Amino acid sequence: MKNNDAHSLLVVGSLAFDSIETPTGKADDILGGSVSFFSYAASFFTKPRLVAAVGEDFPAEHRTMLAGRGIDLSGLSVEPGKTFRWKGRYHKNMNNRDTLEVHLNVLEHFDPKLPESFRHSSHVFLANSRPATQLKVLEQVKAPKLIMADTMDLWIREFRDELLALLPKIDGLFLNDSEAQLLTGHDNLITAGHAVRKMGPKFVVLKKGEHGAMLISQDGVFVIPAFPTETVVDPTGAGDSFAGGIMGYLASTDDQPPGRLRRAMAYGTVIASLTVEDFGLDRLKRTERKEIDDRLSWYQKMLEF
Amino acid sequence: MKNNDAHSLLVVGSLAFDSIETPTGKADDILGGSVSFFSYAASFFTKPRLVAAVGEDFPAEHRTMLAGRGIDLSGLSVEPGKTFRWKGRYHKNMNNRDTLEVHLNVLEHFDPKLPESFRHSSHVFLANSRPATQLKVLEQVKAPKLIMADTMDLWIREFRDELLALLPKIDGLFLNDSEAQLLTGHDNLITAGHAVRKMGPKFVVLKKGEHGAMLISQDGVFVIPAFPTETVVDPTGAGDSFAGGIMGYLASTDDQPPGRLRRAMAYGTVIASLTVEDFGLDRLKRTERKEIDDRLSWYQKMLEF
Repeated sequence: MKNNDAHSLLVVGSLAFDSIETPTGKADDILGGSVSFFSYAASFFTKPRLVAAVGEDFPAEHRTMLAGRGIDLSGLSVEPGKTFRWKGRYHKNMNNRDTLEVHLNVLEHFDPKLPESFRHSSHVFLANSRPATQLKVLEQVKAPKLIMADTMDLWIREFRDELLALLPKIDGLFLNDSEAQLLTGHDNLITAGHAVRKMGPKFVVLKKGEHGAMLISQDGVFVIPAFPTETVVDPTGAGDSFAGGIMGYLASTDDQPPGRLRRAMAYGTVIASLTVEDFGLDRLKRTERKEIDDRLSWYQKMLEF
Repeated sequence: MKNNDAHSLLVVGSLAFDSIETPTGKADDILGGSVSFFSYAASFFTKPRLVAAVGEDFPAEHRTMLAGRGIDLSGLSVEPGKTFRWKGRYHKNMNNRDTLEVHLNVLEHFDPKLPESFRHSSHVFLANSRPATQLKVLEQVKAPKLIMADTMDLWIREFRDELLALLPKIDGLFLNDSEAQLLTGHDNLITAGHAVRKMGPKFVVLKKGEHGAMLISQDGVFVIPAFPTETVVDPTGAGDSFAGGIMGYLASTDDQPPGRLRRAMAYGTVIASLTVEDFGLDRLKRTERKEIDDRLSWYQKMLEF
């Protein structure tokens, strides 16, 4: 566990109360939001620094739980009003979902301010939010080693110019397959990935859900399957915990072996596979680092032939 | 190259003339059909034995080309009438296609008769055809070591009883993801794969197209991604050449290391990735075994982390 500046990981994004219905169960008002999943996943490797806004209704127990994982909450601001709420229902195949309700609440005017102690973070993750907001975060950090960002279809469609202004300023972009196609107009994901790289990022991580992920960089293409599991209880947070596993691992090590990003993606894959086995953070809360390493080693053997 | 009975591979299925339109090109009346792709792919490893029916219009050049690959054509019967024809058009994403024309011609009354010399084949592939026809082939073989079969949505929907009679008599079944879901009613592919195993086969190979493939057996689950490629000219024959690579490799070796089936699937993946790079068999015709092994070794390295 390292948390000096050279191995520091900053995440800026949302905390939320999620209400989720799946074909087999439901959960109400559980802790969600990109930074919950990201920072919890990353906390297996490092002590992430969190920036997010919550409302006055955000209970002390969540704060205690996150702090208990070594997550630095100096950037958690309590704003007048209520915490962001999301309600969604997953389809039978668990790959698609309908958003039933969104209450932005305090997120409506979210203007992230980084504590002075966070400005020299070496690794920065800009969780999904409006690209103009992500740009404001970048103005507050000093020479990070690695900046990665997530985005979504809404920003690609409605705030394309802002997104195009962000892309040259980041090292890596997370996109799911349909977002990559929407952003570039290319159906082939490798072609789409390279087209995104021409817009600025050095590398692109394409998320394909149950079909795994693809890394497109100057070194070419790396593809890994999802960790095979029959136990999909709640897919919420899979993408953010995938990203948290990747960046947590990268922030925790100075090693630069070839394949370091690939190993990071494997860790992300394994942590995401745990996340989906229960609602919200419940499965990760029952996880110790050893289980992650055991699953990684099984996964690694599976891919040998 | 082995072709004694202990390393012999029999394939029974169709030869066809295909007319194909893709978003970027077209080809008319080219050699297609499951056994073309399967036997050509397998011919990199062994000398397959082919059983199929063609019409009087089947040209000598195709016969010469197949024989030149060491494929045993003793089971190729010329029937009165014309060869099976298929015409199809691929959608922009190359994953879906519309069948524009089907002329069964000689296939309408295809009743495969195995030459005496084929009946002791050690490995048998029943390419996609009506399950009753596949069962008739099995009545003619003596104690093969490994029987695998392919099928399609039409048989699952319309001839389910015949298919259920076939399944306990085979070792392995190839299915694509939607067929597995149709056959079992399960969305999760691992669950679906295990449900298929309860119907008879010892293992199931689930084909996910651009997302790779999955092996479900008593040893659990093995998943591999597709070989990443931007060059998809014509996906026709990908599944049959995948199967041909798998069974060709299995028939060619006595080794039983753990992971032999996984290695076979990797070979199938690599050969399928070559097949789709041009129309019909054109790309495989320009391929030598060394290119396959080079691609396999690149692929193997890609999966290391």
